[in-house]
Amino acid sequence: MKPFLNISLFFLLLICAIDCKYMVYDTSPTIQPNKLNVHLVPHSHDDVGWLKTVDQYYTGANNSIRGACVQNVLDSVISALLDDKNRKFIYVEIAFFQRWWNQQSEILKDKVKELVNNGQLEFINGGMCMHDEATPHYVDLIDQTTLGHMFINKEFGQKPRVGWQIDPFGHSAVQAYLLGAEVGFDSLFFARMDYQDREKRKNEKTLEVVWRGSRSLGSSSQLFTGIFPRHYDPPDGFTFEINDVSPPIQDDHLLFDYNVQERVNDFVAAAIAQANVTRTNHIMWAMGTDFRYQYAVSWFRQIDKFIHYVNLDGRVNALYSTPSIYTDAKYVANETWPLKTDDFFPYADKANTYWTGYFTSRPNFKGYVRTNSGYYTAARQLEFYKGRNSSGPNTDALADALAIAQHHDAVSGTQRQHVASDYALRISKGYAEAEEVVASSLASLTALKSVGTFQQCPLLNISYCPPSEAVLGDGKSLVVVVYNPIGWKREEVVQFPVTSREIMVRDSDGKEIESQLTPIHNTPLDNTYYLVQAYTGKTPSTTPHYWLAFTASVPPLGFSTYIVSTAKDTDTSATMATVWNFTSDTGDRIVVIGSGNLKLHFDTEEEKLTHYINNRTMVEEPYEYSYSYYAGHNSTNQASGAYIFRPNGKFPIKPAGQKDFRVIKGPLLHELHQETKPWIHQVTRVYKDKEHAEIGFMLGPIPIDDGVGKELTTQITTSLKTNKTFYTDSNGRDFIKRVLDYRTDWDLEVNEPVAGNYYPINLGAYVEDGSTELSVLVDRAVGGSSLVDGQIELMLHRRLLFDDAKGVGEVLNETICVVDDCRGLILTGKYYVRIDPKGDGAKWRRTLGQEIYSPLLLAFAEQEGNDWTSSHASSFSMIDASYSLPNNTAIITLQELESGTVLLRLAHLYEVGEDKDYSVMASVELKKLFPNRKISKVTEMNLSGNQERDEMEKKRLNWKTQDSSEAKIVRGGGVDPEKLVVELGPMEIRTFFVDFDYLKMFASE
Amino acid sequence: MKPFLNISLFFLLLICAIDCKYMVYDTSPTIQPNKLNVHLVPHSHDDVGWLKTVDQYYTGANNSIRGACVQNVLDSVISALLDDKNRKFIYVEIAFFQRWWNQQSEILKDKVKELVNNGQLEFINGGMCMHDEATPHYVDLIDQTTLGHMFINKEFGQKPRVGWQIDPFGHSAVQAYLLGAEVGFDSLFFARMDYQDREKRKNEKTLEVVWRGSRSLGSSSQLFTGIFPRHYDPPDGFTFEINDVSPPIQDDHLLFDYNVQERVNDFVAAAIAQANVTRTNHIMWAMGTDFRYQYAVSWFRQIDKFIHYVNLDGRVNALYSTPSIYTDAKYVANETWPLKTDDFFPYADKANTYWTGYFTSRPNFKGYVRTNSGYYTAARQLEFYKGRNSSGPNTDALADALAIAQHHDAVSGTQRQHVASDYALRISKGYAEAEEVVASSLASLTALKSVGTFQQCPLLNISYCPPSEAVLGDGKSLVVVVYNPIGWKREEVVQFPVTSREIMVRDSDGKEIESQLTPIHNTPLDNTYYLVQAYTGKTPSTTPHYWLAFTASVPPLGFSTYIVSTAKDTDTSATMATVWNFTSDTGDRIVVIGSGNLKLHFDTEEEKLTHYINNRTMVEEPYEYSYSYYAGHNSTNQASGAYIFRPNGKFPIKPAGQKDFRVIKGPLLHELHQETKPWIHQVTRVYKDKEHAEIGFMLGPIPIDDGVGKELTTQITTSLKTNKTFYTDSNGRDFIKRVLDYRTDWDLEVNEPVAGNYYPINLGAYVEDGSTELSVLVDRAVGGSSLVDGQIELMLHRRLLFDDAKGVGEVLNETICVVDDCRGLILTGKYYVRIDPKGDGAKWRRTLGQEIYSPLLLAFAEQEGNDWTSSHASSFSMIDASYSLPNNTAIITLQELESGTVLLRLAHLYEVGEDKDYSVMASVELKKLFPNRKISKVTEMNLSGNQERDEMEKKRLNWKTQDSSEAKIVRGGGVDPEKLVVELGPMEIRTFFVDFDYLKMFASE
Repeated sequence: MKPFLNISLFFLLLICAIDCKYMVYDTSPTIQPNKLNVHLVPHSHDDVGWLKTVDQYYTGANNSIRGACVQNVLDSVISALLDDKNRKFIYVEIAFFQRWWNQQSEILKDKVKELVNNGQLEFINGGMCMHDEATPHYVDLIDQTTLGHMFINKEFGQKPRVGWQIDPFGHSAVQAYLLGAEVGFDSLFFARMDYQDREKRKNEKTLEVVWRGSRSLGSSSQLFTGIFPRHYDPPDGFTFEINDVSPPIQDDHLLFDYNVQERVNDFVAAAIAQANVTRTNHIMWAMGTDFRYQYAVSWFRQIDKFIHYVNLDGRVNALYSTPSIYTDAKYVANETWPLKTDDFFPYADKANTYWTGYFTSRPNFKGYVRTNSGYYTAARQLEFYKGRNSSGPNTDALADALAIAQHHDAVSGTQRQHVASDYALRISKGYAEAEEVVASSLASLTALKSVGTFQQCPLLNISYCPPSEAVLGDGKSLVVVVYNPIGWKREEVVQFPVTSREIMVRDSDGKEIESQLTPIHNTPLDNTYYLVQAYTGKTPSTTPHYWLAFTASVPPLGFSTYIVSTAKDTDTSATMATVWNFTSDTGDRIVVIGSGNLKLHFDTEEEKLTHYINNRTMVEEPYEYSYSYYAGHNSTNQASGAYIFRPNGKFPIKPAGQKDFRVIKGPLLHELHQETKPWIHQVTRVYKDKEHAEIGFMLGPIPIDDGVGKELTTQITTSLKTNKTFYTDSNGRDFIKRVLDYRTDWDLEVNEPVAGNYYPINLGAYVEDGSTELSVLVDRAVGGSSLVDGQIELMLHRRLLFDDAKGVGEVLNETICVVDDCRGLILTGKYYVRIDPKGDGAKWRRTLGQEIYSPLLLAFAEQEGNDWTSSHASSFSMIDASYSLPNNTAIITLQELESGTVLLRLAHLYEVGEDKDYSVMASVELKKLFPNRKISKVTEMNLSGNQERDEMEKKRLNWKTQDSSEAKIVRGGGVDPEKLVVELGPMEIRTFFVDFDYLKMFASE
Repeated sequence: MKPFLNISLFFLLLICAIDCKYMVYDTSPTIQPNKLNVHLVPHSHDDVGWLKTVDQYYTGANNSIRGACVQNVLDSVISALLDDKNRKFIYVEIAFFQRWWNQQSEILKDKVKELVNNGQLEFINGGMCMHDEATPHYVDLIDQTTLGHMFINKEFGQKPRVGWQIDPFGHSAVQAYLLGAEVGFDSLFFARMDYQDREKRKNEKTLEVVWRGSRSLGSSSQLFTGIFPRHYDPPDGFTFEINDVSPPIQDDHLLFDYNVQERVNDFVAAAIAQANVTRTNHIMWAMGTDFRYQYAVSWFRQIDKFIHYVNLDGRVNALYSTPSIYTDAKYVANETWPLKTDDFFPYADKANTYWTGYFTSRPNFKGYVRTNSGYYTAARQLEFYKGRNSSGPNTDALADALAIAQHHDAVSGTQRQHVASDYALRISKGYAEAEEVVASSLASLTALKSVGTFQQCPLLNISYCPPSEAVLGDGKSLVVVVYNPIGWKREEVVQFPVTSREIMVRDSDGKEIESQLTPIHNTPLDNTYYLVQAYTGKTPSTTPHYWLAFTASVPPLGFSTYIVSTAKDTDTSATMATVWNFTSDTGDRIVVIGSGNLKLHFDTEEEKLTHYINNRTMVEEPYEYSYSYYAGHNSTNQASGAYIFRPNGKFPIKPAGQKDFRVIKGPLLHELHQETKPWIHQVTRVYKDKEHAEIGFMLGPIPIDDGVGKELTTQITTSLKTNKTFYTDSNGRDFIKRVLDYRTDWDLEVNEPVAGNYYPINLGAYVEDGSTELSVLVDRAVGGSSLVDGQIELMLHRRLLFDDAKGVGEVLNETICVVDDCRGLILTGKYYVRIDPKGDGAKWRRTLGQEIYSPLLLAFAEQEGNDWTSSHASSFSMIDASYSLPNNTAIITLQELESGTVLLRLAHLYEVGEDKDYSVMASVELKKLFPNRKISKVTEMNLSGNQERDEMEKKRLNWKTQDSSEAKIVRGGGVDPEKLVVELGPMEIRTFFVDFDYLKMFASE
């Protein structure tokens, strides 16, 4: 074909030489080995929500905010690709592509499939969105990528080969190795990196590297990584959206302003400039930017002309390309590439512009995403138990909502307010449907018949739970089913608000168990009343008086049942906790919080905690916490805003000094309540049987009547000598070492001593010295640092009054409203603190970390009489009764796919060398996970489940690196189809398709 | 086909009802008689130059000024039309379409032809541009329309049926009847009209009328005229360009913000609102505006949906339509329509916003266009004589440049400066090529062999003519060929600058004729020196000292030759005029200017003219002229600018009082030179054998150092009692009666007593009382009025310092530059004044008017020795020696078309009742026009030459009007093929295709 094509082209060009009107452009060039090859990659960067909602972006609605219509992009790109088979385009965001695909005719779908088959249209990245890398949990990243990849695979049989994270504001280790190498990507490309780092890399031609994101998995999970010299748009003067100002090539001699040679010269000059900072004779131009190609012809026409005339000129070779073609060309060049480890945080694009504010922006939304992520994990398990219903209520809507919420302007908190509300609305609709799935699955599993259904309490965090608050009269009981989505048995105190005092709790054997009532203080109740109206539009009908607490004991991947009923006499009722209110009471200056191994000392004079003492481990450490705020810089030069953290002074927040604190002690837990300010409430909670402190906070509205935006932080302070070193996690997975005012890759010039030392925290952070380690775990993404030895600082809340000029164009000043009564955002959340002898912290961090992500799920039913346990399954575990998952592993996905196949992901929870006991190969016995089902087939897949693992490994490119020494990598071996035991090396996640002989059988049947 | 289509549609819709993702929209609706029909007319209004040049608009270059690319419009529209055969689009500006067409493949051209054939793509208006209606000459309007219509006819066989002058700033009578009815249009649509008029018409439902633009041609040249209720865009909320803010219809249940019913309600409400001001149950929505449909799908997708859902709703009927379909629907409705006569000037869109400034804006450019229009008319005649050369130099480029210069932001003077320069550059290139045609035709006609070629002097108006300025030494003579493009014999004084004093002029018989030398004053020479450099980039190499004048006598459509040579002695040399310089000389207080019938009295004390006396007609009338300026309003509320005339006070400009005037008297003409200000030079010129005064002026730079923009006017003042009534022409053709502070169609509320009484003048203006009439003729378009009885005011020049916020975004402050020496524009021009007994003025206006438009064309050659007349044809006339055209007729077009056929247009120059002798049927004998050729065929065509006249008349719609009484219309009858005599009724223009048996024969052979 090729010679024929060229002959016909020649003929057409000859005709043109005579007539010179109708031009046929030769767009066929491919790579030329002996020239500088300019890979022109047409692309559109389509944010899955930002200034507008995802659907507004898709349909082109709300254009007064931003003219953007992804439907136009896809319509016009497909049409332009069909017009010339040499043209190529990459598409990235499957949330948009799926919307478009659903609306197309079968005829067009067939044409598009052909475009994919012949390489004209290539899916890159291929998740539902281009996720953020700082603030999502790795399970969410996997889920959203899987959703997109499976769609692509189902419709086109294509498996994306390239990561394309061009816009996120910093880049995580987990992205590189887990969402990169482990999904089968050969390369990853992005634009944003520290300006100092970029400058050095340009000088040293190290913008392209091989990145090993995981210490544990090393070269077995590396990939080629290319950083753009500037941004993800073409060099200046080569943008061709409708109305763009770049001069088009004017090659019609009949018209004025003929400019072919001038434009070719521009092209060659720009290409040479880039070649000067790039290794090999291949460079890539990302031909597009945000929401471009709304009329694709406007781009393709000019790119056609450039390819034609630049190649006639002959100095460089311009070609239609994709990142895959570019990657292969880089690979073939047989270059030895520099190595990169760890990550690319924090990101600064100039001296005072550190993109570390968004680690915390919209903290309630971040919490909502995280809560629903854990709920989705549990709901899928219960959906699998019951059997997936494609048409009825299922977890798909929640999956979809959570997927787009991982977008780099979603969970990041950098979208406009109405868009944040849209994400939240989608999650809430998805949750509502998933809640039905959970309720009906529990109904099935408990064999509950016609007596209503289970209710759940998503607003438990603000003390709102109508089913538990109902007065238990007339012999009615409250049935509480406690589900444990984790593969190991748990004993945990559960709490929910109740109204009456005479109350007792029995387990499923009818045995009364110890329980505790804690009076609810007024201030949180006021907030609850307001927030319930704001969130639900309803006024709470009851006023709970107490938190009821008892210890639930729940089997792995199963549930236990507890019955709450009216106590016959006070002897049997729940123990009322004692309340010491120091504004009126007197007593010792030092009060001890905690009745188990852990004791916290509270100095009632100074109104602060002073010591952390563990009687078992003999750790005894000065300990205090404090609050302070950073004043948000409001300079027009660079303000602190949704993205940017630019503090203008740090201001400690002292307690009021009015003894506005209370200590509450009961048999199961002790609490210290403090109101540092009317807008800072904190509860420090110590459970009898746990060795960590749980800190609950209710923060806000942050006052702004002084005209100053504030970024609220808390400091956990010990006396550890931590040598400027601290550790933060990467998307809740690997911990990365951070050193104050230091970067591994270049000599840091420090311009922002606070903001430049902030890192994203999803799981937690820790510091250590020779003998002790201090760990903090979080319930959502926050920014944090260790600015002072022995101290960990978390930024919990932000309220700012200036836009930081990074595009969102809106002030990050969140409010909640009941009708017209709008108040600054009130935030509720928790963090967890533990101090361990050095070397012991990892066990707690990994174990509790998993439990925070997957809390016990409570479901409530009202019961007439006392016969529940006789007519219901009151306890259940999916897995073999004799079995539980090893403590260093977790089931992170258990999901029935539409095909009936079950998607199972098992994760090793520890890194190499992290724990002396657990950083070893672990084994999981699949047969014991599914005791009542016959496994017919187990297929190991890549992480995103779009191809078999073997197939992926076979295709993987083996990059040569400058430093190739590394310790032996430990990974699990093949799964014996008879034994069905899965081995997991440290940090390894393995993904399987599991097929059963009979699927719809319930464990309980 | 229709039933099949509907069945298949039904089937597809059924599929959708099941799956509801892929939607097929029913776009097939046509007119429904019993519903309100909303005719949706997709269109793009593409200015042929305005903020950007025509080619920049076409290619999308220079988008930093304005994002607009007509290539995108046409590419994407054609593609969208091919996608759905119910979609329709109209295209208007052939200058753009032709550019696009030239670049298309034959395959696509065939598809486009099919779109035209099936009515999806309809050409509307169809000239090269949407011409201005205030400032072009009717010959230019005809030529530019013909160019477009012939292109359409040649490529598609289509004849546009509808005038579409949606944007011009006021509407002329000539547009309606001549460029409307006479080209075969059934209707005309536009948007802009006086706001008071519009309000009344909306109330009375008279926005749609039948317009009779010509008193002379009445109902034989009427057409249906529709004025849009607001502008030429859709109702608010229905614009769908990429990035437009109107809410798109969101009809995908899978996405958020479903809004079908809401949008249908919006549509119905907007339709009903328009129906309330419109007769019949048909309304039209112009679905588009400036440079829209850059991605046509963005519009068509939404219009598809509206048609589909609005018709499902059923309250109104929405359909794809065109103005033709709409016109036919209006016609079928059988309504009786109100009548409209005269025109729609001036246009005001609000109380203080009269669009009457542009009548004068860019006066030099207006003059340049007019000069080249006349030149083009002459050059086509000479091209025809010689035989057209399609490949060699021809007049096509000038035709093209003049055509686009008629655009409503071109000759109107309302474009940006760089665009004005582009138009001028195109004209100058076209002129240069036409000059070659003229030179070589004259060379052929004079049988000149190898002795160089003829030179012409386009800068004669600024005293620059290198061939005539050359010193005649060594026995050389200067041969002057004087060509007369008019059909009657002319005797006129010709003048050109010469260097030497001893000079004589002989006619072609060798007979010495009377000649006069007039010394050239220094001030104009300084300006000449500067302007020549500015215009040509060259420094004048000689300095002429005199104007040489002699009377040339030239046959109709022919030339005479004169020889200028060195005089042997002073007796035989040209007569030196006497110069009276009153700063030094003394004499009578009253000096008489004029040695023939006309005498002007000049009062040297008062420094002004006082009387106009004609000894033949016995007219004796007080007469003076004066200058004054209007200060340009600079209010941000409404400034005076390129479009708008908003005076802020009128300031008389008094003569300096320093006797800075001179009187020059010679045998052929007298001149009065006055320098009212250093920037106001005027020469009043009276020829011995003419009875009018010719006023030459050189104006500028208008001083602006006081920060005030100025609009410079001249007043010609007599004592006539003119009763607030005056007459101005319509595009150089019909005169229309104007009454101060009065409109025929409504009770005028006067808000701008000056600007609101300004009218466009192309030929001239006159006032009259019971016994006398005062006429003024102009050499280009100007604005003018008669604000005071007996006085005519012309606005000659404008220089303003504020933008008037009508879109051009640039201040009308013209400068000319020599390298970095920039000065305010210096304007040169002429006007002509005559006072006649009542009833005699028309003859002069019509005759001299024609001669101003078609001046004698001078060509110069240097001759060795004295043998010119023996070796050359020194005199020539194309027409029969015994014949000349009747005095009331003109050949306005004589042009050889590419096919070889000759396009001939004959015009009657008088209106009904205008002159007692000439307002009668005239006859032209074609055989005598072409004495040496055999006419094989004469076909009468419509005005734009795209169809036979009979065919056009047969199709013409006969509208019923409310007032149908009128006097009998006089029109010429059919042309007897033997006699070949063409009759012309008053104001009639008839267009013929003339074919000859042998074409390339020259009259001179």
